[in-house]
Amino acid sequence: MGDQVVRIAELDIDVSQLDAYRTMLTEEIEASVDTEPGVLMLHAVSDRDRPEHIRILEVYADRAAYEAHLQTPHFLKYKTGTAEMVKALKLVEVDPVMMRGKALDRLTSFF
Amino acid sequence: MGDQVVRIAELDIDVSQLDAYRTMLTEEIEASVDTEPGVLMLHAVSDRDRPEHIRILEVYADRAAYEAHLQTPHFLKYKTGTAEMVKALKLVEVDPVMMRGKALDRLTSFF
Repeated sequence: MGDQVVRIAELDIDVSQLDAYRTMLTEEIEASVDTEPGVLMLHAVSDRDRPEHIRILEVYADRAAYEAHLQTPHFLKYKTGTAEMVKALKLVEVDPVMMRGKALDRLTSFF
Repeated sequence: MGDQVVRIAELDIDVSQLDAYRTMLTEEIEASVDTEPGVLMLHAVSDRDRPEHIRILEVYADRAAYEAHLQTPHFLKYKTGTAEMVKALKLVEVDPVMMRGKALDRLTSFF
């Protein structure tokens, strides 16, 4: 796995702003994965029974890629734009045990 | 996203059996994604500060694919083989907000 940075972000969002938050998060994920070579994966899901609880599985190529990501216009737009929506944020550093999936074009066709 | 089943499994493993558990989980993930058309993604990670805490992001094509998965020899081998290793198991149904990553061959070359 080399120098990769893998982590899970856990967020609690203000319910009254959840739709707006989801839109901003979606835009930020698309821009990050599509334009930053070092952002390898951003998988965001919401708990079915508590949709304001968001979890994001994040994989960056290395620490430098992660630091660069934090300075991008799309990340800064997301960070400032959602600052008042995020009630709690917990970042958990993790290590991959095994990450495996079908070819991506198949997955993205579903989501 | 259609009929997909997406969820996060959270497990606490007996520390003294963690290596054996990781081996069995890895084998089960490889067999499932490689041989079952309806198992789209299994991403297992361990908390860095608490490696016995395992989280698995799971995506199945639909409920039937998930039910079929539970009957496969490799899943049954994993389930019975790890029964004494798993101290706690929590299954959380989730819904994708946005799941996006680089082409899979690039990701798998890292892990």
